[in-house]
Amino acid sequence: MTGTEGRMGGWLMIAGLGPGAETMITPEVSAALAQATDVVGYVPYVERLAPRPGLMRHGSDNREEIRRAEQALQLAADGHRVVVVSSGDPGVFAMASAVFEALEAGDPAWRSLDIRVLPGISAMLAASARAGAPLGHDFCCINLSDNLKPWALIEKRLCLAAEADFAMAFYNPRSASRPEGFARTLQVLRDACGPERLIIFARAVSTPQESIRVCTLAEAQPEMADMRTLVIVGSSQTRRIERDGESLVYTPRSVS
Amino acid sequence: MTGTEGRMGGWLMIAGLGPGAETMITPEVSAALAQATDVVGYVPYVERLAPRPGLMRHGSDNREEIRRAEQALQLAADGHRVVVVSSGDPGVFAMASAVFEALEAGDPAWRSLDIRVLPGISAMLAASARAGAPLGHDFCCINLSDNLKPWALIEKRLCLAAEADFAMAFYNPRSASRPEGFARTLQVLRDACGPERLIIFARAVSTPQESIRVCTLAEAQPEMADMRTLVIVGSSQTRRIERDGESLVYTPRSVS
Repeated sequence: MTGTEGRMGGWLMIAGLGPGAETMITPEVSAALAQATDVVGYVPYVERLAPRPGLMRHGSDNREEIRRAEQALQLAADGHRVVVVSSGDPGVFAMASAVFEALEAGDPAWRSLDIRVLPGISAMLAASARAGAPLGHDFCCINLSDNLKPWALIEKRLCLAAEADFAMAFYNPRSASRPEGFARTLQVLRDACGPERLIIFARAVSTPQESIRVCTLAEAQPEMADMRTLVIVGSSQTRRIERDGESLVYTPRSVS
Repeated sequence: MTGTEGRMGGWLMIAGLGPGAETMITPEVSAALAQATDVVGYVPYVERLAPRPGLMRHGSDNREEIRRAEQALQLAADGHRVVVVSSGDPGVFAMASAVFEALEAGDPAWRSLDIRVLPGISAMLAASARAGAPLGHDFCCINLSDNLKPWALIEKRLCLAAEADFAMAFYNPRSASRPEGFARTLQVLRDACGPERLIIFARAVSTPQESIRVCTLAEAQPEMADMRTLVIVGSSQTRRIERDGESLVYTPRSVS
């Protein structure tokens, strides 16, 4: 065995835990977790995993993504079997990009590590499934946090997405530290899409706290979203079927 | 027990089988398949499931989605435990929308059926994971088939997506019956995004036929895609890391 690659068989998997339910974690991810010596991630995600002998759980704070990624890469280089965990899918506004940013900027030896991304059920797919099929036609997916990009770019993308008549899935719609962005988002969308456009607030999908709320943009209030909410706005074609006290929301496959 | 709801405990699950590998099927979907009396879907997807006593497999042709959906709803109304299977995720250009279209237009009794959508690992998430993390920032997802929408709308969406600087995931890029659309797509994107923009051709991800090819729009050829290919085009920020003969492609979390 030579170099970093073979040293004690270290590897790094960047894995998605899905939206919350155990039954939505893929067998591939479960197998990686069963073989891991180290799990690295944001505290609440790491705590979703039961402790076991031989497994070190490294929980870190939010906004620590690059430091966390460097820690994981170094552990793998030192021969550990490391799983970096994200909620949902690791490639959608989650740890996979952070790990590759750290890889590109970091120790050149890290490039020969065994690194794989293991997909997970993303929040938008889980939310869409619970609501019906609102993403059944062309759609876009936007992170509404302006921590890592200017707000003007978010607003530009909202307007262009409305013009393209995409359904839209929004991650991180609203946090205590930036409550005004989502109110502004709703106003931009009301102006661009009209008050009757359907909106879905899918909170904590697949957990005991799950709630799904469907209304129109005219009825939507900023307080309906928090950081555990995935928001979906329909296209002009999105429809609602009422049945037994619940709404099914879907976007037809064809454009009428 | 009264009415359709209770009759012999029929139900309908619309389930995603993921991109191909058994290890990417969620336990929730496996459990539904284990309890099913009937599986309904496009022939190659139904054939992914092993036959077993007590399970009737109803394979049907492509472009038969509405008739297939009606069949599944009627079987559930007749008391069967029915799983409609899609490849990937059922809510992304797949059977969930078709079932809800049939539900809305069909027998009003169908509305009281027990119907659930079980998400799966979509082709775009699997392809993104294999390539790195190209969908790590805002992105859109477009079905390039013009069977169900006018080509002019596809082209409009391509131009607006480029203007929004979204990464883009394309489903159904190219088929034998409409080879010219994808050539036109590449031309539109070269004009809008420039020749150096990265493009990923991810074919048959997680199957023995898997291949991942990364190049620039200038190098891309229409023949690099077929109906088993998921195509991803990066945003202006998307980067490539070279290592050990392969390219990792990722989009950073922040905009530079």
